[in-house]
Amino acid sequence: MRDVAIIGVGQTPVGEHWTTSIRHLTLEASLSALRDANIDQVDAIYVGNMLSGEITGQSHLGALVADFMGMTGVEALKVEAACASGSAAVRVGYMAVASGLLDLVLVVGVEKMTDTSGRETTSALAMAADSEYEVSQGLSFVGLNALLMRRYMHEFGWQREDFANFAINAHANGMHNPNAMFHLKISPESYARSSMIASPVSLFDASPVCDGAAAVVLAPAQYARTLSPTPVKICGSALATAPLAIHDRKMPLELEAARISAQRAYKQVGITPADISFFEVHDAFTIMAALSLEASGFAQKGQGVRMALEGDITINGRLPISTMGGLKARGHPVGATGIYQIVEAVIQLRGLAGPNQVKNARLGMTQNIGGSGATIVTHILEAMG
Amino acid sequence: MRDVAIIGVGQTPVGEHWTTSIRHLTLEASLSALRDANIDQVDAIYVGNMLSGEITGQSHLGALVADFMGMTGVEALKVEAACASGSAAVRVGYMAVASGLLDLVLVVGVEKMTDTSGRETTSALAMAADSEYEVSQGLSFVGLNALLMRRYMHEFGWQREDFANFAINAHANGMHNPNAMFHLKISPESYARSSMIASPVSLFDASPVCDGAAAVVLAPAQYARTLSPTPVKICGSALATAPLAIHDRKMPLELEAARISAQRAYKQVGITPADISFFEVHDAFTIMAALSLEASGFAQKGQGVRMALEGDITINGRLPISTMGGLKARGHPVGATGIYQIVEAVIQLRGLAGPNQVKNARLGMTQNIGGSGATIVTHILEAMG
Repeated sequence: MRDVAIIGVGQTPVGEHWTTSIRHLTLEASLSALRDANIDQVDAIYVGNMLSGEITGQSHLGALVADFMGMTGVEALKVEAACASGSAAVRVGYMAVASGLLDLVLVVGVEKMTDTSGRETTSALAMAADSEYEVSQGLSFVGLNALLMRRYMHEFGWQREDFANFAINAHANGMHNPNAMFHLKISPESYARSSMIASPVSLFDASPVCDGAAAVVLAPAQYARTLSPTPVKICGSALATAPLAIHDRKMPLELEAARISAQRAYKQVGITPADISFFEVHDAFTIMAALSLEASGFAQKGQGVRMALEGDITINGRLPISTMGGLKARGHPVGATGIYQIVEAVIQLRGLAGPNQVKNARLGMTQNIGGSGATIVTHILEAMG
Repeated sequence: MRDVAIIGVGQTPVGEHWTTSIRHLTLEASLSALRDANIDQVDAIYVGNMLSGEITGQSHLGALVADFMGMTGVEALKVEAACASGSAAVRVGYMAVASGLLDLVLVVGVEKMTDTSGRETTSALAMAADSEYEVSQGLSFVGLNALLMRRYMHEFGWQREDFANFAINAHANGMHNPNAMFHLKISPESYARSSMIASPVSLFDASPVCDGAAAVVLAPAQYARTLSPTPVKICGSALATAPLAIHDRKMPLELEAARISAQRAYKQVGITPADISFFEVHDAFTIMAALSLEASGFAQKGQGVRMALEGDITINGRLPISTMGGLKARGHPVGATGIYQIVEAVIQLRGLAGPNQVKNARLGMTQNIGGSGATIVTHILEAMG
């Protein structure tokens, strides 16, 4: 097995791209990553996407992207794992390069969610949950997270306001990320009065519906330095699953797939959570950030919220999270999100995060969650220095 | 890189499974493959599927299948490449095992197409084509194939009736396949009078809308014999793309992606087309069978139809194709089709194809086509004897 490195990254701004089609978004992020990697051809293109069929009426994105990039002939396919589609596609690219079968692989995640009615987007997103046992009961994705947040508050004695710092930190970091959807500082007061979507989930607990694309170029680590001045090694990669429906999980508040995938990744690298410099967390909802921190070993059960309350998660805190705005402020174009996280981790490890730079960033971890925790992908990245 | 073998196969009958859900179909094929492989746990599950979101309202099939099989925790994701989704998922499984990262991988393809109106299925299938430039003009998938068939007849001087033997051979072979959708012999006369769908494509030129699931278990070839008495090695695996829209291809009648993927696979094995014992062709439409034979090097340009006319494609012919009924008679549950082809090739190489057994079958080739030729996956399989 060969070690694998990231030699180029690219991204589009996240936002409501009414005039840009899914193929154009993908092209923009992909070309940017290829330029960054100083290459103009790859052996394969793996696309992370969840909803192009339902929302845009276009499946077969692998061939579409290869075609639109003028790389016909190249191997290409799409990977889907709900909101974890992007990182699952990186996982496939990682295996392809690790195997020795392919050398240069472009992995691009894309989602265009705004080009439809809000109701349709909500319905399409709900397909990440169990259609026969959850969605058929009327549960939306916000509803599922509301159930989890309510239960968490009940079991561990937290108030809604205790989650505020997840959103406040994400928005503070998003201020300095030109690609973030929101450049808007929020305060404990604005969080407290933000409108309720599905109690206790308020607008400021939830990530936005948006469009965006992000891309990485993978190469064998042994050649990476000849191609890039600043390669970043993928030293841990793991994907794990848990029951699709929340009611099928023994402990709904323990993200079992996060625990398994984080442990596998730590083991692969030979580290403990304490060795991680920063964590790009899947803060699609504030409750998910808390649960992810706990399952990954950064906080005790029921105490993830305390890390936010005590300031541990800020850029200068014990474990900076959502360093470029997270899903909350950078945005959450679902199939692209896992790749945005990895792109941002690479920027941190290259020392190019500007005002958001995490000091002495050595090992960055990303965790991308599909559904309400059914698919969880953890990657650990290291600058090759 | 490790060599990879298939140590177990499973399939459901293809048909209209009104009372069986997508998860049950997947389970049935998967359990059958695990039993055949004498194992009860795998390291990963890769699911090939195109339309579960659009037709069943369920995405996130990787986690769903892992969950429903009682294998939560296991790595799982879905791969989509339109009608080539099944073989693209096998390609991902192949890379995973080849890399050394994973040992036992279940790859299962599933499609449930009948649980909706015919109009919806036609629209959903059209998403394999270019939505902005083909579908927006009113082209369905049958329409696209009709354009190709009409052009082929015009350029090379064939009549509609010259394609009949593709369908007649497929139906003759399907008679002895208990899992085939149709057990119905057809004749030149019945082909000639079959109803027209999109001229010159008639009902007997087209594969049916149907439900089904098929699965394979992959393992490192070096351990395969300790697990299975009859392992089959994947000695060639290649995926290539061509422009998504037919009008973007320089030579619409040359399946460029078939040529590239077949050549890559031949090169990997170190053989020529003449070494192939039988060919599971993607006969979604009779025209596709002809084009696939030509692009893969079995016939000269414009002469694929002649192979059918002259009887080369029958079980005892020069190059048996669609040996268990092909997409035409076994059926074409799109995301499962590529895996049905591989399952059937394994059955041939094990010598268990009964009345359909190809004599001295040594190297079997499968070719799975997504869209009107935009994604084409070729696998070459060899009995490990």
